[in-house]
Parts: sequence; C-alpha cells; structure tokens
Amino acid sequence: MATIKDSVHDHIEIEGVAEALLDTPTVQRLRHIKQLGTVQLVYPSANHTRFEHSLGVYHLANRALGEIGIEGRQAERVRAAALLHDVGHGPFSHNIEELTHRYTGKYHDDVDELLAEGEVGGILRDHDLDPAHIAGLVAGDGQFGQLVSGELDVDRMDYLVRDAHHTGVPYGTIDTERLIRALTFVDGELVLDEGNVQTAESLLLARALMNPTVYMHPVARISKAMLRRASERLLNETAIDAHQLRRMDDHDLLVALRNTPETQSFADRYSSRRLLKKAIWAELQHVPDSLLEADHEEIRDLESTIANRADIPATDVIVEVPDEPTMRESTSRVIVGGEIRNLGDQSPLVSALRTAQQGQWRLGVYTRREATDRVGRLAAEELGLELPDGLIRETRRGLHATLDDFE
Amino acid sequence: MATIKDSVHDHIEIEGVAEALLDTPTVQRLRHIKQLGTVQLVYPSANHTRFEHSLGVYHLANRALGEIGIEGRQAERVRAAALLHDVGHGPFSHNIEELTHRYTGKYHDDVDELLAEGEVGGILRDHDLDPAHIAGLVAGDGQFGQLVSGELDVDRMDYLVRDAHHTGVPYGTIDTERLIRALTFVDGELVLDEGNVQTAESLLLARALMNPTVYMHPVARISKAMLRRASERLLNETAIDAHQLRRMDDHDLLVALRNTPETQSFADRYSSRRLLKKAIWAELQHVPDSLLEADHEEIRDLESTIANRADIPATDVIVEVPDEPTMRESTSRVIVGGEIRNLGDQSPLVSALRTAQQGQWRLGVYTRREATDRVGRLAAEELGLELPDGLIRETRRGLHATLDDFE
Amino acid sequence: MATIKDSVHDHIEIEGVAEALLDTPTVQRLRHIKQLGTVQLVYPSANHTRFEHSLGVYHLANRALGEIGIEGRQAERVRAAALLHDVGHGPFSHNIEELTHRYTGKYHDDVDELLAEGEVGGILRDHDLDPAHIAGLVAGDGQFGQLVSGELDVDRMDYLVRDAHHTGVPYGTIDTERLIRALTFVDGELVLDEGNVQTAESLLLARALMNPTVYMHPVARISKAMLRRASERLLNETAIDAHQLRRMDDHDLLVALRNTPETQSFADRYSSRRLLKKAIWAELQHVPDSLLEADHEEIRDLESTIANRADIPATDVIVEVPDEPTMRESTSRVIVGGEIRNLGDQSPLVSALRTAQQGQWRLGVYTRREATDRVGRLAAEELGLELPDGLIRETRRGLHATLDDFE
Amino acid sequence: MATIKDSVHDHIEIEGVAEALLDTPTVQRLRHIKQLGTVQLVYPSANHTRFEHSLGVYHLANRALGEIGIEGRQAERVRAAALLHDVGHGPFSHNIEELTHRYTGKYHDDVDELLAEGEVGGILRDHDLDPAHIAGLVAGDGQFGQLVSGELDVDRMDYLVRDAHHTGVPYGTIDTERLIRALTFVDGELVLDEGNVQTAESLLLARALMNPTVYMHPVARISKAMLRRASERLLNETAIDAHQLRRMDDHDLLVALRNTPETQSFADRYSSRRLLKKAIWAELQHVPDSLLEADHEEIRDLESTIANRADIPATDVIVEVPDEPTMRESTSRVIVGGEIRNLGDQSPLVSALRTAQQGQWRLGVYTRREATDRVGRLAAEELGLELPDGLIRETRRGLHATLDDFE
Repeated sequence: MATIKDSVHDHIEIEGVAEALLDTPTVQRLRHIKQLGTVQLVYPSANHTRFEHSLGVYHLANRALGEIGIEGRQAERVRAAALLHDVGHGPFSHNIEELTHRYTGKYHDDVDELLAEGEVGGILRDHDLDPAHIAGLVAGDGQFGQLVSGELDVDRMDYLVRDAHHTGVPYGTIDTERLIRALTFVDGELVLDEGNVQTAESLLLARALMNPTVYMHPVARISKAMLRRASERLLNETAIDAHQLRRMDDHDLLVALRNTPETQSFADRYSSRRLLKKAIWAELQHVPDSLLEADHEEIRDLESTIANRADIPATDVIVEVPDEPTMRESTSRVIVGGEIRNLGDQSPLVSALRTAQQGQWRLGVYTRREATDRVGRLAAEELGLELPDGLIRETRRGLHATLDDFE
Repeated sequence: MATIKDSVHDHIEIEGVAEALLDTPTVQRLRHIKQLGTVQLVYPSANHTRFEHSLGVYHLANRALGEIGIEGRQAERVRAAALLHDVGHGPFSHNIEELTHRYTGKYHDDVDELLAEGEVGGILRDHDLDPAHIAGLVAGDGQFGQLVSGELDVDRMDYLVRDAHHTGVPYGTIDTERLIRALTFVDGELVLDEGNVQTAESLLLARALMNPTVYMHPVARISKAMLRRASERLLNETAIDAHQLRRMDDHDLLVALRNTPETQSFADRYSSRRLLKKAIWAELQHVPDSLLEADHEEIRDLESTIANRADIPATDVIVEVPDEPTMRESTSRVIVGGEIRNLGDQSPLVSALRTAQQGQWRLGVYTRREATDRVGRLAAEELGLELPDGLIRETRRGLHATLDDFE
Repeated sequence: MATIKDSVHDHIEIEGVAEALLDTPTVQRLRHIKQLGTVQLVYPSANHTRFEHSLGVYHLANRALGEIGIEGRQAERVRAAALLHDVGHGPFSHNIEELTHRYTGKYHDDVDELLAEGEVGGILRDHDLDPAHIAGLVAGDGQFGQLVSGELDVDRMDYLVRDAHHTGVPYGTIDTERLIRALTFVDGELVLDEGNVQTAESLLLARALMNPTVYMHPVARISKAMLRRASERLLNETAIDAHQLRRMDDHDLLVALRNTPETQSFADRYSSRRLLKKAIWAELQHVPDSLLEADHEEIRDLESTIANRADIPATDVIVEVPDEPTMRESTSRVIVGGEIRNLGDQSPLVSALRTAQQGQWRLGVYTRREATDRVGRLAAEELGLELPDGLIRETRRGLHATLDDFE
Repeated sequence: MATIKDSVHDHIEIEGVAEALLDTPTVQRLRHIKQLGTVQLVYPSANHTRFEHSLGVYHLANRALGEIGIEGRQAERVRAAALLHDVGHGPFSHNIEELTHRYTGKYHDDVDELLAEGEVGGILRDHDLDPAHIAGLVAGDGQFGQLVSGELDVDRMDYLVRDAHHTGVPYGTIDTERLIRALTFVDGELVLDEGNVQTAESLLLARALMNPTVYMHPVARISKAMLRRASERLLNETAIDAHQLRRMDDHDLLVALRNTPETQSFADRYSSRRLLKKAIWAELQHVPDSLLEADHEEIRDLESTIANRADIPATDVIVEVPDEPTMRESTSRVIVGGEIRNLGDQSPLVSALRTAQQGQWRLGVYTRREATDRVGRLAAEELGLELPDGLIRETRRGLHATLDDFE
C-alpha cells in the first residue's frame, strides 16, 4: 500500500489495483494537466492538476465503499474507475474539449480505448478486471457508475473543496465527510440517507457560487475561448490531428502553439496576459433563439463578417455562445420520511438556482482592447441582439472589478 | 493601540476609544457569555464567547471604515458601537432573551442605560461621544447604524465565519474580505457595489445552511427550551428578578440553577446531558393558525393540560412554537447596472430560501424519553395538529442521526 | 456508535465502552472546565474545554490502536482510559492543581476513586473492565499506559493542535496523522518507526514554541498565580475543603470567589482584567539556590515581609518560583537503523531545547501597578536576587508587547 | 490598484510600479515555473509557481514597509524588487541552477540585465527607478536589500507558509504577521524588536523541519539530479546554450527533453515516474574529504568509472555530493534587553540545528533499480567511502517509507 500526502485530504492510502495503476504513463500524465486550465490567469494559485484530483476522487470513492460496506472485486472495480476517471482529458482539461469532440466525436469520459491498451489494460486484466467494464463505470454506467459519475458523485465532492483550497475562494467548502457518510444504496440507486436534504443542497449551492466566481469568470472564459481558437488553428495549419491533440498534455500544447507561426501571436498574448476584452456581454433575454441554435460554422461565419466590417483580422473577433446552464444535481435522490425523492421535487432551491443560473448566463463577444466599441456595435447588429439602448456590455466593478481590471 | 490575537481574524488592532473601553467590566463580562449558548451540547467545540465575537465585529467595522474612507469622530462612534454592540446580552446569549424580554420589555440591543452608566459612560463622554448616540447605532439607527446592525452588517459576517470555525461545520465560510471591500454608501444607504449579487447571495446562503445545521439543531432547541423554562422557574421561586437575570453571566446562571431546589433537576439533566426528547416534531402545514398566534400563557396552559392527562409533572412537558422564519438579508441593497436594487428583487434565491426555511420550520413538543409516545398522542389532540396518520414526529437518521442519537 | 463533529479532527466516532461513558456526569463535567484556564485572558479565543480535548485524545488513541492492530478487550481498556484520562482535573485545569495537591496529595491523573465509583464504575464493570486497571493506564502504567500518558502519548498530540487552533498561534501545528502512523510497539515499548527522527523532533519543537508563547505567557502566569492565591483564601475562609474544590467546575469556583467577601476583590480584578503587574522578572542565573528550594510556607513568609515593608496588604504581593523546566520528550524512543534509541541521544536538538528552556525561565514577583517599583526593589533585597545594576525586570516590547500592554 | 486573490494571503493589493510591472512577459513567465520543481513527484499538490510566490513576497514586503513606516520612492524601490526578485529563475527553479551557473556564471539573483532591458526596464525608468539599483536590492545590497534578500527576508516567510499550504506538510506554518510586525531598522540594520527571540527561532525551526521532509526529500533529490543530468545532455547535444536554457520555462524544457533523442529516455522515466533508486545513501562521517572537495569533472569521471565497471551506460549512474548545510538565519539580529544580538549567540538552538543538519546530510549514488546492489558496492569502493560493514544505504521505513515506496 502506498501513502501519499495530499494538501486537501491529508494522507491518502492507495491500495489494490490502484497502487499498480499509479505509476503508469497514462495516470502520471495527469500531473501535467491543470485541473482548471486558464482559470490560473484569474486565480494565480489555481495550478492544481488532474493527478491530485484523481487521487482525491479515488480517496473519497474508497471512503464511500468502506462506509457502504462494499468489498472485494466490486470495490476494486470502483477504485480503478475512480483513479482512472479523468485519463481521457486533453490538455487544459475542459478548455478545448468542445473542439476535440467536434473533430473526434469523443468526450473525456470516453475511455474505452485508453483503458484497454498499454500498461493500464495489462494491469486491469492482471487483476481480473475487464477494461470495458471499468470504462463503463467512468461513463456512469450501472449501479456503481453512480458513485464515479452521477448526481452525487465523489468527483464533484473533490473538485469543489480542491478548487476552493487552491483558488482561495471559500464557496466550495463543503462537508465531504458528512456527504460520504450519508451515501447509501437503495434498490441499486445511490441516495442520501434520511435527514440530509440540506447536505444535498449544500453541494448544489457550493457549485452555484463557484460557477460564476471561478469556473465561468469572464477572464477565464475569454482566455479559454482564445485557447480553443488557437488550438483549432493548430489543427488546421500543422500536421497535428485532433486525436494527437487530445493526447497532449499542457506542456506539449503550449510549446506547439509557441512554435507554430500561425498561433504564435496567441502564445505571446497568453504569455504576457494581454487577453482580448469584452466587446459584448449580453443577457439571455436579449439573444435571439436562432443564435442560441447556431452551429459552429454559422458562428465562424458571423465572426468573419463582423471582423470584415470592423476591418480587423478574423482571428481578432470571438463570438462565444455558452450552452444553457444545466443542473445535474437536481435529480439527486434523498430519503425524506422513508421515501426516496428527487431533490428537485423536495427543495425549492433547485428551481431557484436554475433561474439564477439563467440570470448569470452571458453571450460574449471578445476583441482587442482598442476595437471593443466598434466591434461591439457591429456585432450587436450582425447577431441580432435586442439590447436596451446603449447597453452592449456590462462592466463589472466594485471589489471584483479589481480582479477584472487585472485582465 | 492594543493588538489581540484572534483565531479567526489573526491580529486585531484595537484603537481609539475602543482601547479605552476594552478593560471595562461591561465589555470583559462578555468573556463569560457563550456565543451560541447550548449549541455546545451538539458541537462540543462551540465554546466561543460574545467577547471574541465583539472583537471580530469591531475589527470588520474598522476595516469597512477604512475601505469606505470614514475617519475622525464618525469612525470613533462606529468603533465604539461595534465593540459594545452585544453588551446587552444576558447569560447564554439569545437562549433566554425571549424570557427576559417578556419580563423587562428589553432586547439585547436596547443598551441606552448600559452605555450611559458606569465606566463605559465615563469613557464615552471623555472621548466626546454621546452614549445615547452610540446606543442608537447599536440599535441600527441612522446611516452608520446600518454597518453595525442592518441587512449587510459586520455582525453577521463575523458570526458566520466564527461559528463555522468553532463548530467545525464549514457552511458559514464566507469571503469577509470581499464583502468588506464591496461595501459602499450611496445617498446615505449602505449597498454592495456593482458586480456583487453573488457576494450578497453567499451571505444569505451561508445563513440558510447554518440555520438548520447549527442554530436550530433539534438538540440545541430542546436544551434551550429547557434552559428557558428553568430560568423562568428561578424568577418565580427566588428573589432574583428579570433585570438581575439579564445582567448575570453564564456562570452566575448555571450556579443559581444548581443551587435552587426547584431548578436542580434541570441542572442535573443539563450536567449529564439527559435532555428531554421530541414527542412531536411537526411541519408548519399541520399546525392550526390559532396555535401559531397563541401567547405565552395559552401555551403554558396547554402544557399543563397535556402533562395532567399524561399524569406527569407539568415541568416535564415543553411545547415550543418558533416564530415564523424571517430573512432580513432579502432587503440587502446591491448595485446592478448602476442602479440600486433590493436583493430580493434581483435574486430568485431569496424567495426560494424563504420557502425553504418555511419547509424547515417545526413545532416541537418535548418530554422525558419514556413518555414520548403518550405525550405525543395527547399533545397532537390538545394542540389540534392535523397530522397525517401515524406521523407525530420525524426521526432524523443517516449521518446526522448519529449526532442526534448522541442526544 | 455515536458520531461527534469536532473542530479539530472533524467527525469523531465514539464506540464501545466509550459511548456508554460519554453521557455520565463525570465526563460531561469536563464541558465546564477550560483546557487552558486563564490563558483566555491573553488569547480570547482559547475557550476550549477538557471535554473536547478528551474526545480528541480518545480519537487519536483509537486511530493508533487501529494502526498498530490492537483489538478486543485491550483496545476497550485504552479507549476507556483515553476518554477518562482528564476526569481528575479540578476547575481551571492545571491552574490550581499545585494547590489542591498540597491539600489532598492528589494530582489530576490520580483517578482510582473517580473511576471506581458512581456511573463510571458501573459502566466499566458492566463492560468487564477493572476500574483500577483503567486508572493505572491513565497514570501511565504498563505497556498501553504509554499511549495515554508517556513521552509519545496522544494527549500531547491533541492538545498541541487544539491549542493552536483555538489560540490562533500556529506553532502547535504538528502532523498528527504521521505521528499516529509511525507509532509501533517493540518488546512492549512504544517507539516511532524507522525514518521518524524529525517526526519526533517536530513534537518537541512544537511544545518548545508553544510554551513561552502560550502556556507560560506572563499574563497567563500572573492571572494563574492570582487565581491560586484566591482559591487558597477560599479554602481558609469558607467551609469548602480541598476535596470539594477539586470536584468543582469553572462555574462553581468563579461564583464561589465572587460570593465570598475575602475573595471578592480578586473576582472584581478578574472580571475587569485588572491584573497584578510584574515587579520582578528575573532570570535563573540571578536567583539564589535557596530560593529555588524554598517551600510554600517560606515563600508565603517572604511575601508577607515584602508586603509589610512596602506597606501594602499581603494579598497584593505574589512571589512565583516556577519549577525548573523538564522535557519528557527527550526519552522518546525512535528506531534508527534498526536499533531503538533515545531521542535525547539521537537528536542534538533535545539538549539545545533544554538549554533554551532554562534561558526562558523567569522568577516573577507581582503586585499592583502603582507599587511595582517599590515592591521590585524590596523584593530583590528580600529574595537575595543578584540582579545586574538597575535591572529588576525585563519589559517585553515589540509586537508581542502589544499583547502585554493589553494586560 | 489591482487586487488579486491568493490562496495563502487572501486579497493582495498591487500598487504603484508593481501594478505596471505585473503584466510584463518577464513577470508573467513566472506563472510557468514551479516553485518546488520536482518536489511535485513526492507531494502531488506542490504545483505552485514562482508567480504566486512573487506576489506573496511583494505583499509581505509591502506590509513590512507599512509597519516600519517607509514611503515614497524608497518604498517603490522595495516593491519593485520584491515583485521582481525571482525573475532570474530558470525552468524548475533551483533544480538546474547549479548547471546554468556552471555554464553562465550567473545565479538566479543576478538580474542586472533582465531588469535593464525590455518592458521591465522601460517601466522602471518611467517610474524614475534605476534598474541597477533594483537589481542590487534583489541581490541583497544596502539597507533595504535586507528586506528582500537577507537573514530575515520576506522571501523565506512567504515560501515556508506557501510550501506548507501546497504540500500539506504543516511544519512551515509560521506566524508571518507577527514576524512582519516585529521587523524594525536600527542604525540601518534590519532586526527583530524586543521580545522576539522565539519569533526568530520559529523561522529557523520551520526551515529545519521543512528541509529534510520537503526540500531535500530523497525522491526530490533523485529526480532533480536526473533532470540536471538530462538538461546538461541537452546543452551538449543540441544547439540550445545555457543562456537560452536559463530563459526557458518548465514547458519549454520538458518538451525539449522529450523531443531530443538523447534525453528522451529521461523524459520517459520522468513521465512514468520510473526514477533511479538509491544505490548508496551515506552519512557525512563516512565520506572522505577529497570527495567533498571534488569538482564537477572529477565527479563525472567517477560516475563513468563506476558505470564501466558495472557494465551499464554512464547515464545510469549519478553521484550526488550536496554542499554542506548552511544556516543563514544564524546571523539574524534580535534586540534583547535593548541590545542588538546575533541570534546565533543568543539561542542555543542555532548551533544545535547546525549539528542536526549535518546529521541529516547524505551522499547519494543513484542507479536503475535492478543495479542498485552492484553499483552500490562498486561505488563504495571507487568513492573511498568508509562504510560500516554491510551498510551501503539506509532504507527509510515506517510511515514515511510509504511515500518512499511510492518512488
């Protein structure tokens, strides 16, 4: 058994198949992928990696197995899936996942191949574990898949506290031990035991506060959009294909962007934190449905048109239309008065949070600082935004503004 | 200037009039009043006092004054009010406040007399401060009263983080520095600056989670009801009157309860943590309006009737009808798009939290463990509760249950 | 099994005999005894109690049993001893222990009677545990007594981190999990396993830094001396005897001191923090051996003589001659290269810390603020101190001074 | 003024020239250099960077300036020097500094050129600051250089708490606020004010415990030695010269090592954490003086000879002879009884810690796992080690061993 010191969970004991998997290149590669990608440009301490997060998820899964009383092969499967659940991530984690998905059809939790091949495949088979079964757990299949990837999964419990620890934003501070102890299976369904409606709500609320403050912070969104754009350029201009891109780590991608003439200007901007600025920052109500449904090609065309009219290079205009917010936790299951209920039915907070998230949704158009006014006006026209007079973008000020001014 | 080391805010510097006030008996008395009263029976580490909380409130008020740019006499007034804001508390803080208010007409923030008399009055006048003005600030009067006692006051900011630190429940962990930096005055009104809707919501959510988990935990409610009952007995059976009671500290009250024959059995129960148990724990929807509006006498009569019918001493039945939950933060003012708005109008969470709090409301009937079934049935009848068949009390189980089993 | 939330160790599970012992008056009484007595006058957040410390010691002992692999009856005995190890403490913990020992011959770890009688005795016998055996463990007897009271005991591990958490002084922050995992028995002796010389040193260093900063802070020493003096007066002037005093809790003692005319002036001073001040603060090298060996009566005579000559009441002069510092950890046993060695032989830090502690040793003479100069000069004469010219007391200034000015 | 959220110091305000310097490529580059280099292979959470550390050093320097009362140009100079103090670091911080120094004659604090050129030079001159003067402060010159680089510098205060936060090892937890408040200048010399001997000792002790546990952990030493070896190979086999190497960041170096055939095997080992193992781990007393004085060439020759005799490639044997430990803090100056004294003269701990550090010193010989025995024996011969019979290397076991087993 190996013991590893973690800044969040203190001593983590790695046992069974997990110990054998630990030093494979597939798992060690996660040391080189930042958990929060470009969020580090807003919160400089947020340099934690998918590796330490994977150890944390393994640890919480193992704790949950112990509390629920699952042992033997079943436990080994869950431990393997927990440690391996993020090996499918590309460089900068979720930041360019939309891009690699568009080209490869695969998201990060599609790990069938990765688990079947190489050292990992060998170790799993040596331990009498079926790689395809483990990949299924990673994708959330079956009863035990709920623990690894579901509404009440240990993945979320780890990342909220870990991201809080490393950003310094306290909102993610949940009571993981209490959550772990409240988990139980009823008829094959993972639920929180009686008396834990607030425990479930606390998980939901933590995410609701971390979302705008950390994960969707404007500077994080802008830098992520720039990175995605530059990475696509890399695919188009070099021999690197999307499958290779997906297997890179942060170092590989950053150096490739620096060394490719077509992406060097992005690399320079990134290195000196000269990011694009908001030309438009518009609420959901002002955005026409057609734009919400536009596909990637249509958005690219709009960007070109705007750039043309503004007489600046097409690479200097980014239109970002985020997906509408989801709230997976709303289907968390809690026992209330002996009955299993959906958290969304039990707690009035769930629908309020959904509304709140829609209120936080923003369409963003980004461009060079000196062109924001011009591009803002042209983009409003081209995108058909029905903005109130004179309002093309909010400015965020007050305390937080200082973090923004730092943009 | 004095510097004091605090476990929450690290080094606190006490300056100006506050330093002179620090060593008065009026302020030092707060060392002997627990911040959370009987909550310590649920969370054993919750032994922090009104004294350290008052230092924390002073510290945050002083930080806010610095950020907003208020100096001179006005600042001295706020510093004095912040340090003195809790000197009106009786033993066990809020636990017996309803009782002393019933007999004296005064709540803890009614400090006119206390600030005018004795050493405190002398020091205030020596510093050219009017005790009545400071008492007004403590009560929330005027522009600067909002800082000390209002919807966005520093009192709440301190107690949430302090109670989290000492109970070990992480839900109160808010970002006090960010809140302090977001405070500003517009036309004499205390508001949170642009970009801080989530900052305001975080304060609201922290309280919403701490409430059921800490402040209104069933064991805390039961022990508090028992303490209030015993303290009233003390008033009725001894020469101690309510004005004296209000000036006691925790030691005085506990020893008086131990030494008075009529309250000794409470003292014994308290000392060995043999608390009464829930006979009824009923939701708001099952409670008739007449009961919600019943006054103290009517409740006492109902208790007697139930006890008589159950053939146990009247002191062994407690009916507790909490007030309906309020949410002062809903009128917090935030700047959105240059306009001052009510948080309640801006955030869908506010009304959802109000609904959630009503869902958490419970009427409690408490009695000796061996009589809970009998008393439960009789009380349901006498109180006119329209309970679903067979349901007279919820039992809380799961993880939290272990804390309850410890009851 | 009960689960309790602790601010230091998070969730603590109380099992076996410990759960049965938890709600006895003997254990619950510890809720009313502050861990650090009057240290709270220096560090206002230091209000934690012997109860939460006892839970922490129980928790660490239980962890150690699990790591070492001890089960069954032997484990039950250690759990009982850990939870009960401090029930012999009088009010204000160690503060008046010297006094009660002088009158009763008993220290706080002399718990034979307490464990044999009442509910505790009954529960122990019901669990087939011999109260005398458990009392022996508390006193450090036998192989397993080393875990509860020895050079490497879990008592120290808990109090260092707990005192750090509650005072805000970070020096006590040790790595308890690593220590627990390093503990092992070799030939019946508790030792730290190979590779843990620094682990052992860290425990030693933590105590070496907490000592002068917290436990022996001048204000703590002065207030403790005043409390001891007042408590002795209580024994002399009232019907309370030392056996009763030892069984009081903090509330009982404080109220008794308030209500006894002869001790009321102490109670007033304590309530408004008007403590005596240093008249002399002298290093070990300046104190004659005869004074170091003087017994209680001789010291009392010296105090009277000094007070007489200074023409102030005898109660206003306190001469405090601390014991010479000890360092129990120096005999901690560590495995180095397969051999068991004494830490004191292995680590050059041990003797250096012993020298450092002797450098920190101070004789104190305390009196009213206005009499410090006069009493200082007279005391130097009467006590035969060979002080360098003009030096009767150090003043501590700089940052820490602010904590002292607050005296 | 910009405000940045830091996970250690919370909100950091960047003012004056520091704000202008923040977004230069020279400073932003530090985002891509890990503070602790390969220590991340032992403590997976230790991914913090020189950028956040530089912000922390800036913050503490600014706090110290405020406490001491230094303003205007002098303060601007110190702020600039604090923010810029680490811009001279090469990839992986200190890990390959010995190598680049050997080739370029420059250490990381030799920043004259870097501060004179480019954006940084322009900004400094625009603020009427002389780049050469600022570089002098970084090197520790003059009165104010002591704050940035000296025995009591804010650099150390930041890295100890930051490394503790990110590794999870609590030993570095010092009281930075107290240290900052104790700093003062007397006759141009930076000293700790009266009453702060323990404050000074605490800094010393923190480093003494962090050293073997973190900075000199065997796995960190081995991986660092491997990295240095591979980097030297890169200089020898490619067009990259040492000046270029020194200006790379972690990404550049890692990718260069991956893409160069001669260093690819290192890159593979690093990526899958298949590090070399200890063949010898010998105490100072067993090492001949001649070896301690051997220069780089002599060591390389010895490695070749050992590898030849063992019949393995020369790249698979590393002999590491660390410098003898120093203890800069021993000349920290503290005021005791009104006099300025050297901490080393005042505190018996200083010389004890020096002895302790010499006891911790180890010569290391590293090779492939399967060759450790053979290489160990041959190396003992070639290096002339006078080892006790049979002892060629210690094995560290016990708790810590688990971290080692993870090697």
